[in-house]
Amino acid sequence: MASQPIELDHIVRSLSASGVCHRNQGMPPMPSVPVLEDVVEKLRSVLYPGYFGHVDIAPPHLPYYIGATLEEIYRSLVEQIRRGFCFFCPNDANGPCQECEARSQDMAAQFIESLPEIRDMLATDVQAAYEGDPAATNPGEAIFCYPSIKAVTNYRIAHALHSLGVHLIPRIITELAHSQTGIDIHPGAEIGQRFFIDHGTGTVIGETCRIGDNVRLYQGVTLGAKSFPKDESGKLIKGIARHPIVEDNVIIYSGATILGRVTIGREAIIGGNVWVTEDVAPRSKVIQPLDHG
Amino acid sequence: MASQPIELDHIVRSLSASGVCHRNQGMPPMPSVPVLEDVVEKLRSVLYPGYFGHVDIAPPHLPYYIGATLEEIYRSLVEQIRRGFCFFCPNDANGPCQECEARSQDMAAQFIESLPEIRDMLATDVQAAYEGDPAATNPGEAIFCYPSIKAVTNYRIAHALHSLGVHLIPRIITELAHSQTGIDIHPGAEIGQRFFIDHGTGTVIGETCRIGDNVRLYQGVTLGAKSFPKDESGKLIKGIARHPIVEDNVIIYSGATILGRVTIGREAIIGGNVWVTEDVAPRSKVIQPLDHG
Amino acid sequence: MASQPIELDHIVRSLSASGVCHRNQGMPPMPSVPVLEDVVEKLRSVLYPGYFGHVDIAPPHLPYYIGATLEEIYRSLVEQIRRGFCFFCPNDANGPCQECEARSQDMAAQFIESLPEIRDMLATDVQAAYEGDPAATNPGEAIFCYPSIKAVTNYRIAHALHSLGVHLIPRIITELAHSQTGIDIHPGAEIGQRFFIDHGTGTVIGETCRIGDNVRLYQGVTLGAKSFPKDESGKLIKGIARHPIVEDNVIIYSGATILGRVTIGREAIIGGNVWVTEDVAPRSKVIQPLDHG
Amino acid sequence: MASQPIELDHIVRSLSASGVCHRNQGMPPMPSVPVLEDVVEKLRSVLYPGYFGHVDIAPPHLPYYIGATLEEIYRSLVEQIRRGFCFFCPNDANGPCQECEARSQDMAAQFIESLPEIRDMLATDVQAAYEGDPAATNPGEAIFCYPSIKAVTNYRIAHALHSLGVHLIPRIITELAHSQTGIDIHPGAEIGQRFFIDHGTGTVIGETCRIGDNVRLYQGVTLGAKSFPKDESGKLIKGIARHPIVEDNVIIYSGATILGRVTIGREAIIGGNVWVTEDVAPRSKVIQPLDHG
Amino acid sequence: MASQPIELDHIVRSLSASGVCHRNQGMPPMPSVPVLEDVVEKLRSVLYPGYFGHVDIAPPHLPYYIGATLEEIYRSLVEQIRRGFCFFCPNDANGPCQECEARSQDMAAQFIESLPEIRDMLATDVQAAYEGDPAATNPGEAIFCYPSIKAVTNYRIAHALHSLGVHLIPRIITELAHSQTGIDIHPGAEIGQRFFIDHGTGTVIGETCRIGDNVRLYQGVTLGAKSFPKDESGKLIKGIARHPIVEDNVIIYSGATILGRVTIGREAIIGGNVWVTEDVAPRSKVIQPLDHG
Amino acid sequence: MASQPIELDHIVRSLSASGVCHRNQGMPPMPSVPVLEDVVEKLRSVLYPGYFGHVDIAPPHLPYYIGATLEEIYRSLVEQIRRGFCFFCPNDANGPCQECEARSQDMAAQFIESLPEIRDMLATDVQAAYEGDPAATNPGEAIFCYPSIKAVTNYRIAHALHSLGVHLIPRIITELAHSQTGIDIHPGAEIGQRFFIDHGTGTVIGETCRIGDNVRLYQGVTLGAKSFPKDESGKLIKGIARHPIVEDNVIIYSGATILGRVTIGREAIIGGNVWVTEDVAPRSKVIQPLDHG
Repeated sequence: MASQPIELDHIVRSLSASGVCHRNQGMPPMPSVPVLEDVVEKLRSVLYPGYFGHVDIAPPHLPYYIGATLEEIYRSLVEQIRRGFCFFCPNDANGPCQECEARSQDMAAQFIESLPEIRDMLATDVQAAYEGDPAATNPGEAIFCYPSIKAVTNYRIAHALHSLGVHLIPRIITELAHSQTGIDIHPGAEIGQRFFIDHGTGTVIGETCRIGDNVRLYQGVTLGAKSFPKDESGKLIKGIARHPIVEDNVIIYSGATILGRVTIGREAIIGGNVWVTEDVAPRSKVIQPLDHG
Repeated sequence: MASQPIELDHIVRSLSASGVCHRNQGMPPMPSVPVLEDVVEKLRSVLYPGYFGHVDIAPPHLPYYIGATLEEIYRSLVEQIRRGFCFFCPNDANGPCQECEARSQDMAAQFIESLPEIRDMLATDVQAAYEGDPAATNPGEAIFCYPSIKAVTNYRIAHALHSLGVHLIPRIITELAHSQTGIDIHPGAEIGQRFFIDHGTGTVIGETCRIGDNVRLYQGVTLGAKSFPKDESGKLIKGIARHPIVEDNVIIYSGATILGRVTIGREAIIGGNVWVTEDVAPRSKVIQPLDHG
Repeated sequence: MASQPIELDHIVRSLSASGVCHRNQGMPPMPSVPVLEDVVEKLRSVLYPGYFGHVDIAPPHLPYYIGATLEEIYRSLVEQIRRGFCFFCPNDANGPCQECEARSQDMAAQFIESLPEIRDMLATDVQAAYEGDPAATNPGEAIFCYPSIKAVTNYRIAHALHSLGVHLIPRIITELAHSQTGIDIHPGAEIGQRFFIDHGTGTVIGETCRIGDNVRLYQGVTLGAKSFPKDESGKLIKGIARHPIVEDNVIIYSGATILGRVTIGREAIIGGNVWVTEDVAPRSKVIQPLDHG
Repeated sequence: MASQPIELDHIVRSLSASGVCHRNQGMPPMPSVPVLEDVVEKLRSVLYPGYFGHVDIAPPHLPYYIGATLEEIYRSLVEQIRRGFCFFCPNDANGPCQECEARSQDMAAQFIESLPEIRDMLATDVQAAYEGDPAATNPGEAIFCYPSIKAVTNYRIAHALHSLGVHLIPRIITELAHSQTGIDIHPGAEIGQRFFIDHGTGTVIGETCRIGDNVRLYQGVTLGAKSFPKDESGKLIKGIARHPIVEDNVIIYSGATILGRVTIGREAIIGGNVWVTEDVAPRSKVIQPLDHG
Repeated sequence: MASQPIELDHIVRSLSASGVCHRNQGMPPMPSVPVLEDVVEKLRSVLYPGYFGHVDIAPPHLPYYIGATLEEIYRSLVEQIRRGFCFFCPNDANGPCQECEARSQDMAAQFIESLPEIRDMLATDVQAAYEGDPAATNPGEAIFCYPSIKAVTNYRIAHALHSLGVHLIPRIITELAHSQTGIDIHPGAEIGQRFFIDHGTGTVIGETCRIGDNVRLYQGVTLGAKSFPKDESGKLIKGIARHPIVEDNVIIYSGATILGRVTIGREAIIGGNVWVTEDVAPRSKVIQPLDHG
Repeated sequence: MASQPIELDHIVRSLSASGVCHRNQGMPPMPSVPVLEDVVEKLRSVLYPGYFGHVDIAPPHLPYYIGATLEEIYRSLVEQIRRGFCFFCPNDANGPCQECEARSQDMAAQFIESLPEIRDMLATDVQAAYEGDPAATNPGEAIFCYPSIKAVTNYRIAHALHSLGVHLIPRIITELAHSQTGIDIHPGAEIGQRFFIDHGTGTVIGETCRIGDNVRLYQGVTLGAKSFPKDESGKLIKGIARHPIVEDNVIIYSGATILGRVTIGREAIIGGNVWVTEDVAPRSKVIQPLDHG
């Protein structure tokens, strides 16, 4: 039995009408999530050669491969960064303005320039993952299959772009990792060397967090905001420091929630499932009371 | 060295034998998860024109695009809804029965009819996401990259189908969002306007929840059941109200667990990581005690 | 405006230089994650015939389909298992050594041999999912769309491979499920029959856990390690028993954290969000104290 | 500069209006050319095992593979044959009638039954290709890369379907080969064993040709019709014998054109580029006169 | 045994050096053949609704589909036409100039405007194919699977673009058909109504041909140029009329070659394989002499 | 109505039985046609930079791209050449022998080494195509869309591999072009500089042809063998010189057939559709007589 045609005209009219959910279609296109996924995969292949991408390239030919891949990354990024700017730029209704175009090229070039530095940071994270997990047998295993390394790689890429002033793209890149790993790190957070998140699902690190070196987190940890000050007109004030500062060598166990601009002092240990809204002294321990019913 | 062929016959016989994990292959095919993913992507493109799908369509041509897309959605949905019915229908062993076929067309048509209403609800959710997150710079940013909007969009689609009596398909649609965002909303839950889940990973909203307007949740929140009453034969009684009622303007922080048919009164605030199994009075606050060891 | 070419040579040189993140490209290729995804999908089609893969095969022809699929699984697995060995084997710099090759064929064959047993275990898990969830209307619904079944299927496959001594591949297979469901089960864990995890996002089960029959977990449960003993040189001692033993019929509610080689006695109930680091007596209940502020 | 939207409404109206080029969209769908391409590729894999499809299957497992592939071929063919009938059937406006359905299953089953016989004919064609081409080094080379074998395989498949009374599908299958090889054999032609077409581009064999055993053609040969008798109303009379009969052991060189229901006697040789519209005696030779200007 | 790396540097240097085969990479990109293939498929779906594209759209919804498809065709064509201009435009080294951009939009719009007329011409070609081929059972069969209709459709599209002054794109569109059907019609040729080429492989119709109404050709027919006048510097003079004029109702049989600006008078019949370089009187017949050796 | 299962066992048994059409599945896999298509596309991108492949690479980055592409071509070719040898090698039943492996690497390396020379030859062919076709407006147009350049490029690649002694692969590469263009050039033929085939469909150039510089052919030209000498046992003698020698500056018009080891003297012109089996003197003209009936 063939389906009966249904009456669509009034639904079409209703859905075509402008509103909150509606973007002016004359504008330049949105950034492309699949293209950005591909850019991140290509970045992984030049940051971890031999693990991702064309993995069996002979060492003398590696520079060709890395050069060609960087060229592709650069061109894709210029385009995507530009789309990110256009999304917010009032001058771009009929195509990208000169300034958006120029800034995109400039920022993509600066980002490419910073890749060796990003790679060096990631090398410390890999080392930390290997040393911190008794189940790991090899640093390469961490590179190849640990969600922490995937999420932290996306974060360090996104953070570099965010620091250059790129719009929207950094957030898309960290959301890609969030979707795949359950680890949600805002690109604005600052994170030191040797960072490791074990298991990681449900861990959240807010926009204005500052995390020192050698910090280890577990799954379900929240480093969040406590309150959201509003201006006199009742609107949220955006961008003020409202997330925790976590100093060097801190460990935070699974499910712990730390809210507000508090400082977790160096070498402190935060136990699982606790709720912290005040400063924690260096080298101290916070744990949850138990009630065996 | 070529692999040796292995002896397969006895394994084949064993795995071909009928059992719990075995479906009668003469039956009509299961719903297709990739087709449903595509249907949801198409729905996103007509609910948020300019953000998803063919994003650079000139406004005068938008109705063509929306009409053609609705036509495709309708035909795919009729087929998938029918498969969902066949999965449970005792009369469908040799192909869909007349009744399954007729109900599928009818329900798909009613669903299409409800799209403007769904879109209007989602517009309030987008507004809430933008206003509730200090890191958001633009409502469009929430539409384009917030997991909450993705999960709530899938939920509102699935809930509309569930309310019409569609089987299996609503659950598949919310599981798609669950897998991508870590947010698990049962299609049976009732949720008011301006709903927002920040970060969201690990949040669970059970089948018989009733949530008011303007509610905000964080990651890792559970709105679950406390006990599962069984009938005299020891089997679970399915479908009875067993999840919380959350009234208007409530905020529930990360990791909180609320179990059973309790009521969280309007404007109450539930702190992070707490465990609630009783009613909470309107405008009250529940927080977790700390033990700085 | 065309993009300006950027100067790449010094970046190429820097990224081509060897280091922590760098794998010797002369080595045999890494295992292929997409191939392993395909192997797991094919396994699903022979473990749950009629639900996945070619779902409308007539019963008399099912053995052909299962035989052909097992053949493909076997050949892919031999190759992937071999790559897993090569990743660690010092003799494989110029291609797989004889021993790696022989072990791969042997282990893949033994794994295929164990499939009926794996299927029988999974049948008990499906039954548990159906009986344990008041929202489930049919065991087939659990097979087709429950994240728990997806994660436990991957785990039981990975555990069988891990028990045979396969390297790296088991971890990749459980990480595939982790990424899709948020459920992180280490392939080394031992888990009895009738196992069910409701919702599941954020649940973590560590490498040396031993879980009895008929255990039910919820989302956000951690069965983790408390401390990581180091050897005299300060390195972690790998592989010692450090995760909980959970006996038969235990229920652990959402967000609970159980750390260390403690025993949760049979029929115990662990409430949501609690933190347990000591043994829990059989049939006892552990819950979290509340503070209605 | 963004493109200006153009006025489409009047073009849409014009193109939506019914006419010669317009098919009634309420009818069942057309056969699918990509599905038929896939069916032919699968047939190639069971007719020439080891050359096409999964080429590295161990011999003891081959029956699984062939069985599973035949099952898939059968189901696809039933559907496509049915669509071919619906295309012409006046009763199928609202879905396939019972008779179309029943005939499709019956014909697909008979076709599968005839595959060993088709394979045996093709084995003689392969032998002829190898023996007839001084550049061939191996019968397998002919199977794997000769256009003649590709075109003749499609023809023998199509001819078997045509002989069973299948509509439209046979023609689509020979057109697939025509497009890839330039060899155009009508499915209605009758062709004996050991048939070979060297190079083949531009060769045409008409609907009512009858070709004996051991015939060899070259590129650009036409076995066509001379005139097209019309009935009293001036319409072409369809289906009458109007193409050549070519007896055993004939060779026809490149570019020769033979038109009408003439007989080329056994062992005759037709030279290149000649034009023949009358019978040619057995064992005779026809060649073109030259004019060296 | 792993492959030895080979020395590539000198080959890379040599191939990177500029020369005849080398295009200045700073220029705008070449037209995209896959995009143009897609445009042609979309055009087929609006010229022959119900045969190609989404074939099961209910008639009341057809305008949505046609409108959305025209919108997509328009935007793709603007881009591809622009690339075609840039390929030749000396001002486009740094992106398309204003004039190239404006002409592209204008020509794409005019082309869309001409589609109903193209469709009407094609309807006469379909009728001619059905009436002219005794093996055809239905005009729809010709639309769906005759190479002539495929090639003539591409030609009529390409000719319309060529007449508007579009560069390069028309040739790519006729070459697509040439590759699939072996029929090579230059987009510059002028061809009247009711045009049919039976079988068609190897037929060539040159740039300046003028063909009347109701002409029928067979495979391997050449309507070509005889000589190529050169200018005083010895270069070919491009674009002068040098191919045959074929008047109404002419039939030209397979393999005939007609060269130069000759006129084949109305209702003439040209036999197979003949070579014609002079005018042929109306209603006359040209055939090849035979030599039965 | 669901399809009835058919009885397959006896067909499976019959098709699984060994025979002419059957390859021993224990052997190494056949060469992969899709991989070779990809290799040829990659070769096109390094032979014609800016026209194919990544067309918008900035000139300073071109060497990276060419180097990375050559690396990929080299590795693919080693594998495919090896498979070609294995197809014929009696020692390769259990995987490639040492000699097949070594020769493959050696030949692939020599082929890469010869690419600049191949490119230089092709530059002369491009020039000839541009100068010889009054419809061409630009050498780049010939590179980008002339079938002659596509076919001759594949031929020159295949000929280089054939000359090195590579098996099977060269033939597959010329058949790819044959299928796309209708031009069939045997890889064994020797062809001088500045070679052009206008239109080309149906042109055949045999294995032992020797063609001088600056030769132009048209569509449907055959340079074939006249007879096939057999040895005393009645088998064809393979590999002896049996195709024409065509000297410099010859033009052969469409449909001409030249058979046997005859010599077409320099600057001779062969008219359309003629049949030549004897030597043609330099600077002479051969044309077909006409009969206006």
